[in-house]
Amino acid sequence: MDKINVGKHISGKFNEELEAVRNRVLSMGGLVEQQLQDALSAVEAFDEPLADKVLSSDHKVNALEVSIDEACVQIIAKRQPAASDLRLVIAILKTIADLERIGDEAERIAKVAKESFNNDQQQFLVSLENLGQQVLGMLHRVLDAFARMDLEAAYEVHQQDEQADRQYEALTRQLMTYMMEDPRAIPKIMNVLWSARSLERIGDRCQNIAEYIIFFVKGKDVRHVSAESIERTVKGKQGS
Amino acid sequence: MDKINVGKHISGKFNEELEAVRNRVLSMGGLVEQQLQDALSAVEAFDEPLADKVLSSDHKVNALEVSIDEACVQIIAKRQPAASDLRLVIAILKTIADLERIGDEAERIAKVAKESFNNDQQQFLVSLENLGQQVLGMLHRVLDAFARMDLEAAYEVHQQDEQADRQYEALTRQLMTYMMEDPRAIPKIMNVLWSARSLERIGDRCQNIAEYIIFFVKGKDVRHVSAESIERTVKGKQGS
Repeated sequence: MDKINVGKHISGKFNEELEAVRNRVLSMGGLVEQQLQDALSAVEAFDEPLADKVLSSDHKVNALEVSIDEACVQIIAKRQPAASDLRLVIAILKTIADLERIGDEAERIAKVAKESFNNDQQQFLVSLENLGQQVLGMLHRVLDAFARMDLEAAYEVHQQDEQADRQYEALTRQLMTYMMEDPRAIPKIMNVLWSARSLERIGDRCQNIAEYIIFFVKGKDVRHVSAESIERTVKGKQGS
Repeated sequence: MDKINVGKHISGKFNEELEAVRNRVLSMGGLVEQQLQDALSAVEAFDEPLADKVLSSDHKVNALEVSIDEACVQIIAKRQPAASDLRLVIAILKTIADLERIGDEAERIAKVAKESFNNDQQQFLVSLENLGQQVLGMLHRVLDAFARMDLEAAYEVHQQDEQADRQYEALTRQLMTYMMEDPRAIPKIMNVLWSARSLERIGDRCQNIAEYIIFFVKGKDVRHVSAESIERTVKGKQGS
């Protein structure tokens, strides 16, 4: 993992603590990415044991969230960080909350792999693949951007969410058409729809994490601002 | 608003700052509660102007989230809070994130009120009322618990989410039956289903806020723990 510039500290111990917490966020991110990848593979291959693996790794993600959260609060209390150090701790606190919820969505997707679909119904699941790969790619890239606190990479992920949203909307329309054509399949198709919704939400959460990275690097909160304003912040045309 | 015991500070100014932030969280909570109430009324009465009001108050909620967030970071940097003061600031940071997302869900519900439903289709919307009132009640009570940092009240809200989840599941099954009976109405019914899902998520977020209150009062993170363990923490049978 690249070392990022987390400010110059009198205490080498403080540096170590921050690095250790950052490493644990990356482990948590890796675990959640694996959950999503496994959930998508489980759905694609109707692989029930793999789906169970996703469901059973939930407690590891939860435990990491709680322990990283605690470590952050400890650092604030003991080290009284300021400026970019404090921003890093805040960015970590928020990132792990989103990661935990991405894990929850991956579980919801994995549960669909445990439902039985007959041959005719498998087409419903196939429709998830594109959106799934798109969102998995966003998660991978935003974790990579987090590891390097890479502003440009974060901004790219931020922009990709629009495409994921469009794909999700097209998928929803398609699934509703299937429902109208075969009303008896509605309960099955609803499960696929919930998975599509979960994927869309994971995209949103990747966008959130991209915003925390921008907040850390630029010191500016870019939630709820226009696309132009985010671009100005990232490209540094406005004060950083 | 009741004053809560936020620790004894050498600086009266610090007390004032914490109180001011707490007041703003309650304003934000009031605004979001109003959004949800208006969204539900708009759906019930097909009141499009009221739905527009919900949609247009979004930027106020967002601005409050960003400014409270900033104030919390300032307090951490300037006042270096420890123990229960720090827990309060952390609880506030997390609470406003959930409140903002409750506002987003209220907007999603309000949008449904802007769709046109014919006389036959109005029965779909009626089915939202019970769950809507249940979740609105949870939001009201958890904000009240937050204002007083009332452990028992927070715990009650935490337990109520199970009932909301059951109500949501029954509602989902009912709406799927409507779909199978009248496939042409599927797109309309889907909108109602998304609203039901939004309500269920709002219940989850109220439960989150209850957990932050328990964290503040008891100093213990009760996310991802068993119902029995939460009860022990709240009832103080285990070390607080």
